[in-house]
Amino acid sequence: MLSAAQARQTVLETMGAFAVQAVPLEKANGRILRQAVVAERDQPPFDRVTMDGIAINYADYADGRRQFSMAHTQHAGDPVRSVDGTGACAEVMTGAVLPDGTDTVIPVEQIEVNDNQAILANDYVPQSGQFVHRRGSDHVKGTEVLSSGQVIRPADVAVLASCGLESVDVAATPTVRIISTGNELIPAGQPIEDHQIRLSNGPAMAAMLEDGGFTRSTTDHLPDNPEELETRIGTHLAEADVLILSGGVSMGKADFVPEILHRLGVSKVFHKIRQRPGKPLWFGKGPKGQAVFALPGNPVSALVCCRQYVLPALRSASGCPPEAPFTVSLGEDVYFMPALTRFLPVRLGFDDDGRISALPSPTNTSGDFTALSGTDGYVEMEADVVEFPRGTLLPFHAWDRP
Amino acid sequence: MLSAAQARQTVLETMGAFAVQAVPLEKANGRILRQAVVAERDQPPFDRVTMDGIAINYADYADGRRQFSMAHTQHAGDPVRSVDGTGACAEVMTGAVLPDGTDTVIPVEQIEVNDNQAILANDYVPQSGQFVHRRGSDHVKGTEVLSSGQVIRPADVAVLASCGLESVDVAATPTVRIISTGNELIPAGQPIEDHQIRLSNGPAMAAMLEDGGFTRSTTDHLPDNPEELETRIGTHLAEADVLILSGGVSMGKADFVPEILHRLGVSKVFHKIRQRPGKPLWFGKGPKGQAVFALPGNPVSALVCCRQYVLPALRSASGCPPEAPFTVSLGEDVYFMPALTRFLPVRLGFDDDGRISALPSPTNTSGDFTALSGTDGYVEMEADVVEFPRGTLLPFHAWDRP
Repeated sequence: MLSAAQARQTVLETMGAFAVQAVPLEKANGRILRQAVVAERDQPPFDRVTMDGIAINYADYADGRRQFSMAHTQHAGDPVRSVDGTGACAEVMTGAVLPDGTDTVIPVEQIEVNDNQAILANDYVPQSGQFVHRRGSDHVKGTEVLSSGQVIRPADVAVLASCGLESVDVAATPTVRIISTGNELIPAGQPIEDHQIRLSNGPAMAAMLEDGGFTRSTTDHLPDNPEELETRIGTHLAEADVLILSGGVSMGKADFVPEILHRLGVSKVFHKIRQRPGKPLWFGKGPKGQAVFALPGNPVSALVCCRQYVLPALRSASGCPPEAPFTVSLGEDVYFMPALTRFLPVRLGFDDDGRISALPSPTNTSGDFTALSGTDGYVEMEADVVEFPRGTLLPFHAWDRP
Repeated sequence: MLSAAQARQTVLETMGAFAVQAVPLEKANGRILRQAVVAERDQPPFDRVTMDGIAINYADYADGRRQFSMAHTQHAGDPVRSVDGTGACAEVMTGAVLPDGTDTVIPVEQIEVNDNQAILANDYVPQSGQFVHRRGSDHVKGTEVLSSGQVIRPADVAVLASCGLESVDVAATPTVRIISTGNELIPAGQPIEDHQIRLSNGPAMAAMLEDGGFTRSTTDHLPDNPEELETRIGTHLAEADVLILSGGVSMGKADFVPEILHRLGVSKVFHKIRQRPGKPLWFGKGPKGQAVFALPGNPVSALVCCRQYVLPALRSASGCPPEAPFTVSLGEDVYFMPALTRFLPVRLGFDDDGRISALPSPTNTSGDFTALSGTDGYVEMEADVVEFPRGTLLPFHAWDRP
């Protein structure tokens, strides 16, 4: 049986790469960039005024001049104009091009204007070159400002816009089918009997993928009927890039899923992982290279497996580098006997010392997903350790940010 | 001039409350819950089998019996059946109802079946009641499992489904208009002159609001022309719940925005905050109670103000409690002289001690928004302190999670 780390590695190695597509700038947020983005121009593209005021030649000030005649006004967005002659200045607005013939800006608060003459405040001492953001001082034209594989965040949207890109190449969003199996599952809104339970994994996993930027997933619910399972899983397999099943992979007689997947040409890569929850996870590769994850039906197991294996797989196939490690300090003593990697849901808080502290929200035999509400993610606890004292540093995986 | 804390408090107190609307379960992720959600049934709703195997009456085992005759199979989703008589058992599947007349589950790995007789493995010692998740042991019917004001996360979608809710009451998404002003701004895709700059604030702020779940925002670009500004801002004001302007609020002659807003019946609540960046922020209330934020045009200022004031305001009007404090340790010495609260963009990392360490990504005169790419948020540094040595604990605000 694979370890959790081996399983993750195997999943990532098995994934192919999703296609690349262009999306308009206003749809780029949250997508995974698949091109390098280089600066369109020097940034700033001109010597840029950073305060409303007047632009002077500092040499005039150094020569003792305190009064300047205003030649014209340079607004933001106006083409550059010149200021010529000793003692001349231009009124300038924040964002304007610094007028030719000037090098220093005096803020409006430090001048008094009479009759087109700007007079510096008595005690004001400007520095040469002040309040000018020099052309190219942030970066020069052609500098790589965003790299392929980055998730595009709001500040990156600003960078894309600043590079003049109306559209940008990103990883195509895979078509994902999420299939819940089990006669006992009744969708919300339908009458329910005592022996039945509500179908919840499909909507929750679709929501988790959506948070990860994978918005093209649909859900289906199939009964424990081998013929119907085979027909409908076959259809989904033909139409999807990624298939996620929940339920039907443990050892019971109604767990037909692995056999049916085999008949549909999905080759098993592994079945079962030395972990809790989620030990029965089955992973395979379909005839067209589709990734097929068959997750346990237990809601906590399904959500942990979705976050731990499915999301990183989708990100990897989208061209993202592996997630950066994030370490937290365990907030209370935990003992765990089985030789299994344990994924323990936690809420984050702060201890007195500025450390992030992870408070376990244990779930009742891993079926109590109500306890997951309000948790921030889960910590990963090594298989071969039994005692995890308070303060142990552990890798943390946030539900919403791989 | 208000302090940053006063400004935030004032903004929250000025906001009204957005309406409540019902959305279907599959659209609930990321929305802000506006109802309490109570358990539809006991959870689990029956004594639930948690392993594939056989269900026995433990008293039979205690009496020395190791062989059981299998009366029937209880699948997940089947109505409960009875196991009657000494030495009888039922085959059971994970998720099934525990058959009446039994109390303990023996895993399939620990039995051998011959001729409908299940024989326990020689050395196997079951515990009474094992592998049964008792009815109501997670919670009983009527327990409040989600509260009004919570942001609905994927695990909460599972909880909503488990409570049988096909639709749920959430805060209505406000109509937001984001207006960039300035002749110097040229949208991506259009030819650009040396003295012009790319319009980037609108798309970036729309992306930030989208990440916060506020998806009904549109952007507009208006020139520095008082008549056109007044007409079009008036139209946006009539149609929007929230107006965000960027540019036009500092002291230059082209900064007409506050005056125009006044003429349109927007009453000023405050103008300017003792902070950097974002000091010129103007905030007012429109004739229908609309919130109007007029942000500086500088991209770093605009994004910080959007995260620090606009997002918390939208969340508050949606019924969310204020954000929980999040503290990080400063990764290097920082000096800041002005008596202003400083919002300093940072990347998070980890120091040797398990503390989250915030590494400053200073922006060049706050116009260098390329430096924001890859930052996780910003730290808030008190106005009246000059030296912030490495290791200082500071409040942190993540770009994407108020």
